[in-house]
This record gives sequence, structure tokens and C-alpha cells, in this order.
Amino acid sequence: MKSLREELWFETKERVEFINITPRVEDVVRRSGVKEGMVLVNAMHITASVFINDDERGLHADMKRFLERLCPFEPTSQWRHNDTGEDNADAHLKRQLFGREVVVAITAGKLDFGPWEQIFYGEFDGRRRKRVLVKVIGE
Amino acid sequence: MKSLREELWFETKERVEFINITPRVEDVVRRSGVKEGMVLVNAMHITASVFINDDERGLHADMKRFLERLCPFEPTSQWRHNDTGEDNADAHLKRQLFGREVVVAITAGKLDFGPWEQIFYGEFDGRRRKRVLVKVIGE
Amino acid sequence: MKSLREELWFETKERVEFINITPRVEDVVRRSGVKEGMVLVNAMHITASVFINDDERGLHADMKRFLERLCPFEPTSQWRHNDTGEDNADAHLKRQLFGREVVVAITAGKLDFGPWEQIFYGEFDGRRRKRVLVKVIGE
Repeated sequence: MKSLREELWFETKERVEFINITPRVEDVVRRSGVKEGMVLVNAMHITASVFINDDERGLHADMKRFLERLCPFEPTSQWRHNDTGEDNADAHLKRQLFGREVVVAITAGKLDFGPWEQIFYGEFDGRRRKRVLVKVIGE
Repeated sequence: MKSLREELWFETKERVEFINITPRVEDVVRRSGVKEGMVLVNAMHITASVFINDDERGLHADMKRFLERLCPFEPTSQWRHNDTGEDNADAHLKRQLFGREVVVAITAGKLDFGPWEQIFYGEFDGRRRKRVLVKVIGE
Repeated sequence: MKSLREELWFETKERVEFINITPRVEDVVRRSGVKEGMVLVNAMHITASVFINDDERGLHADMKRFLERLCPFEPTSQWRHNDTGEDNADAHLKRQLFGREVVVAITAGKLDFGPWEQIFYGEFDGRRRKRVLVKVIGE
């Protein structure tokens, strides 16, 4: 069995931002030499997500508005987590809804994707350095 | 390491429909010859989910009503994604909440399930041909 | 390829309760002897979740309040699943939002975690014996 582990680092300009990381994951898979296997891609922070959906600007705007309506940032005093001095309870909840990780099949050395699948880093409490783990296993 | 890859195809009659695919996944696992490993089952489209829950009609009605309340199809003009000419922004969001994929353990050649676990294809924008990927790895 | 399978059992005092199971998962990984691979941790029941987030009491209170607002337990008659004689439709939905499973990378024999990642068993219909599956694969 082969394996490869890499970290992808981010520092977003906005508090909430989605970044298409598909090419970077493809590059790790290529360098792993794995032809048949799986790749795990997960946020290493608990106020961020990794998810698969469409790379369409209007949809991303809908997603951000939807999450903000369900888990509003303000007033920050509505969340007990923020009694600790943090202000990011909403980001922890947004991440719960959008998920921590994706697992993608590798077939013939490539990400085994449907026509529109793209992998996103979903940042919900950005403007500082955070990272994603990519772990490939297979043969 | 052994691996097997198969696609399951669907064309639902309703726009939103849940289909129990457990027997079809079991069949792929059996044919893979894998005794110890994992199977990844994921929607290959970004307006559909694969999830594990109960095969109970009342629960499925609750799930559909719940998702429709959170992410309503109409009015379609409420979503910026639909400015592109699409009408399925709600389906992209419903899929985010119910997830893209499941990973199931394979033990002694079988899906290693609790008493009520069943795998569902969750279609949120149906009435056309769409598919699920089943990828088995192990020994 | 090596593999190890273990069950973790729980019987919570409250109907909804979150339990940090990170040390128990670490212990299974250690005993598996796997140095590079993945561990799947999933609820074997469909009214419970396994998820990764922060071990902070205020955040857990926020999560419980958030889920109760979206998927209220009472009135139980609002859910068609409860027409079967059950009263736990809300728990099935809460589990959908928080997810069934996590997959964690194993690197150099350890859970490959960011600084605050902790694994939780999320019980939504407790006060009875229920379990989680831990499945390790790798080399």
C-alpha cells in the first residue's frame, strides 16, 4: 500500500470564503503514484469545511446567505461559546452543516468525479493561516 | 490490495425521491471479493446525496418536508444560482445538508452495519439520468 | 494491509448528550499497529452522530439549542415518523445534520489532527445501550 500526506495552507481575506482546491488535490494524487485508492481531504480546523459542489458564483452567494440565516454571526452574544471570549460560535455551527471532510475515489490515477464535482475549502472564520489535510492511500 | 468500481444509475419519477440502494451496494461488495476494507458510496452529481438512515415512509416524508422548509424550491427567484437559467439552487443546498457520501466498513466480506442502517440515494433534482459511484478497497 | 474492528458502547443519562471519544479511538488505532492509513468512526444507530469539533461546554450548549430549534422533539405529533409509535423523528433529523461518521487519517501511527480536533459521539435519543464502530485499515 502506498500513502502520501500533504497540507494545504490558506489565509483568506474575507471572514467567510470558498476556495476551489481541486487542482491542488489532483496534484497531490498525481505525485502519490496511487492508481486505485481513496483520498481524504479534511479541514484541520473546526471552523472550516471541505465540501464538494458546483463552482458557480451565484450558488456560493446563496450558500453564504443560507448559512448566515441559520447560524448568524451577530449578535455574538446569542451564543454561549462566545462567553469564553471567542466570537466564532457561528463558524463552528456552519462547519457542522457543511461537513469536515470528503473522501474521493481514485481510479486509474485520477479523482473519480462526476461532471460538475469540485472540491472546496469553506472558510467560516478566516483572515488567519489555516490548513487542510490531504491523505492518499492505495496502490 | 483489491479494488472494484461500479456506477449505479437512476432516473426518478419525482423531483425529490429517496431510493434504498443497500442491496445494490451489497452486491458490489460481494463481487469485489474484499473481506476487510471500506466502501465509498457517493453521488456523482451535486444536486443529490447518499446517506444512511431508516427505511420508513413517515420519516422520509418528514425529511422532505424539513428540507423544503429550510431550502424552498419556490419562488425560484430567491436564489442567485437560478439567475444563470437553472432552477435547482434549492437542490444544491439540500444536498449540502444531507451530504455527498458515506463510507461503510467491510468486515468478513459484508457491510458492517448496525440493526437499522440502510443506504439511500437522495435525489433533489430528478427526472433525468444520474448516477452514484461505488468504490471498494481492501483485501 | 492490516485492519482492526472494535465497537464502543454507550448508555447516556440524557436524551441528548455529546461524549468525547478521542482517547478511545486513539487506543484502537494504537492497538491496530497501523502506521499509515485511515480510521472510520461511525454511529451504528440512525439517531446518533459521530462528528469532530471543539470540546467546549458553551459550544455544545449552542449546538443542542440550534438542533432543537431546527428539529424540535415536541410536539411529537408534528412528525409523520412518530405515527409509527416512535417518538424520535427529531433524533433522525438531528443526526442527518450532524452526520453519521468521520474518516481520520493515520500518520506515523497517530490520529493526524489539527490543534483542536476532537471526536464526539452525538446521542440524540439516548438512555439505552447504543454503539459506535471503529474500523482501522492501513499498513
